[in-house]
Amino acid sequence: MGGAVASTNQAGALVLQKRWHCFGGEQRVYALRSAATGTETTVGVFLPPAALGPDAKPVPSLYWLSGLTCTWENATTKAGFQRVAAELGLAVITPDTSPRGTDAEGQAVPDAEGYDFGQGAGFYLDATAAPWATHFRMASLVLEDLPTALEAALPLDPGRRGVSGHSMGGHGALVLALRNPGHFASVSAFSPICAPSQVPWGQKALAGYLGDDREAWAAHDACALLKARGFNGEILVDQGDADEFMAVQLRPDLLQSACAEAGVPLELRLQPGYDHSYWFVATFIEDHLRWHHARLG
Amino acid sequence: MGGAVASTNQAGALVLQKRWHCFGGEQRVYALRSAATGTETTVGVFLPPAALGPDAKPVPSLYWLSGLTCTWENATTKAGFQRVAAELGLAVITPDTSPRGTDAEGQAVPDAEGYDFGQGAGFYLDATAAPWATHFRMASLVLEDLPTALEAALPLDPGRRGVSGHSMGGHGALVLALRNPGHFASVSAFSPICAPSQVPWGQKALAGYLGDDREAWAAHDACALLKARGFNGEILVDQGDADEFMAVQLRPDLLQSACAEAGVPLELRLQPGYDHSYWFVATFIEDHLRWHHARLG
Repeated sequence: MGGAVASTNQAGALVLQKRWHCFGGEQRVYALRSAATGTETTVGVFLPPAALGPDAKPVPSLYWLSGLTCTWENATTKAGFQRVAAELGLAVITPDTSPRGTDAEGQAVPDAEGYDFGQGAGFYLDATAAPWATHFRMASLVLEDLPTALEAALPLDPGRRGVSGHSMGGHGALVLALRNPGHFASVSAFSPICAPSQVPWGQKALAGYLGDDREAWAAHDACALLKARGFNGEILVDQGDADEFMAVQLRPDLLQSACAEAGVPLELRLQPGYDHSYWFVATFIEDHLRWHHARLG
Repeated sequence: MGGAVASTNQAGALVLQKRWHCFGGEQRVYALRSAATGTETTVGVFLPPAALGPDAKPVPSLYWLSGLTCTWENATTKAGFQRVAAELGLAVITPDTSPRGTDAEGQAVPDAEGYDFGQGAGFYLDATAAPWATHFRMASLVLEDLPTALEAALPLDPGRRGVSGHSMGGHGALVLALRNPGHFASVSAFSPICAPSQVPWGQKALAGYLGDDREAWAAHDACALLKARGFNGEILVDQGDADEFMAVQLRPDLLQSACAEAGVPLELRLQPGYDHSYWFVATFIEDHLRWHHARLG
């Protein structure tokens, strides 16, 4: 258990790097050479007991998208999802939050000063502005490269994917689900950035990755997407009412209005006393896993 | 939530540094100026809902002693004890693994090369050999300074303390319980160093902290203590059978023999496939909390 294995430079190649026995299942870490980002990316995969052994059957998978500054590791070690995921027979995929390191030509991935743009802050979109457009293609990583590689190698059911996430990753979960009907059968979020076009974190990221055209921003803004396209699904959101970022960066009030206008069922739970940390996520992750499981079957 | 507060230089003074709402309770971090170590030490304290608010009542407390290289933070963020501790009404105290930083005179605490001796490796004993004897008094910290300060400030019942820990901390839990009858009403361990006098980690630590007198070592060795004194209690131990350290450093076989000879009830559970990591601890921590709760009332 836990031994490192050499990585590979072949696009699409998936290499097991670590594995730990955990709640009767396995927490694994894979390296994937992503065609979308041109880099090797690291991803956590929790496999429940139902997906292991000679009687393994295809299980549903929940993509968990993490927030600013995180890697695959934060949610994997701090959210405590493995216990309930093992019980429910749910795989949990924890991607990185941006491309890292060097590309296939050995060129370093660009970065920016600050924790809220560049590495660790990919915002789960495909950038169109230089120098980010070459590597910062996190939407394609999450929607194409990861499911293609993981569903080929592991007993994951392509028809039963859910998505959730925290903060920037809550934005990612909402936007990827709204933009790609049918790709995810369930969507929830913790403390999401609900209207990036209207808040500082989002405006910095959207301007940097997409340029100054605000119409392009609207295609990556959950509230704008709800108004423009609606959504044939329901959404669960947990938000701590002591979250220091709620009023300026997250704006659940705008999500509530947008869902009401679009007629989209939103269960928005304001949790008293909770802040923006993984302590909050850990407290309510069980509810989200059960909510996704009920919809993924 | 989460704001830092200035520390103090007065011995025994306890200063709240951080707090997070979590499973209806609070995960807190305190700084304590310890008379035993002469340093400021950091300690995690989880308070269950039963210990908070106007109807708070004294609750039992479980001391969790961590392993080599850890601080208060590893178990606090990775073991996932808060959910069940909240349900059971159990406080969980997570001390550091050694003195750190500088003493009251501003002198740096000594350290040693390697992860298994010096800072991060206090072995939960009071050192007698120079230069360690001045500060490395972790037994007195855990048995005196922490309960004195915490039970004065918080609704913790002095008559209902339990102790558990992992690896070096499993050694600490066993030895502190065996040496101090009545101080802890329940004891368990994960992957403990069962016979430090007989294994490399323990021999290095005992020689360094206590000198070359092997009779002094026996007073800090769970297997030797069981033979010399017996124990009027029962012990729960979980051990992964894929633990890379089991055969050379941990030696649960010696604990099993010593308990059998001493007539001490030991529930030793060999868990198939599990290694030495916190993934193992997280999987079985619920069983340990329920086991302690049943004995702490």
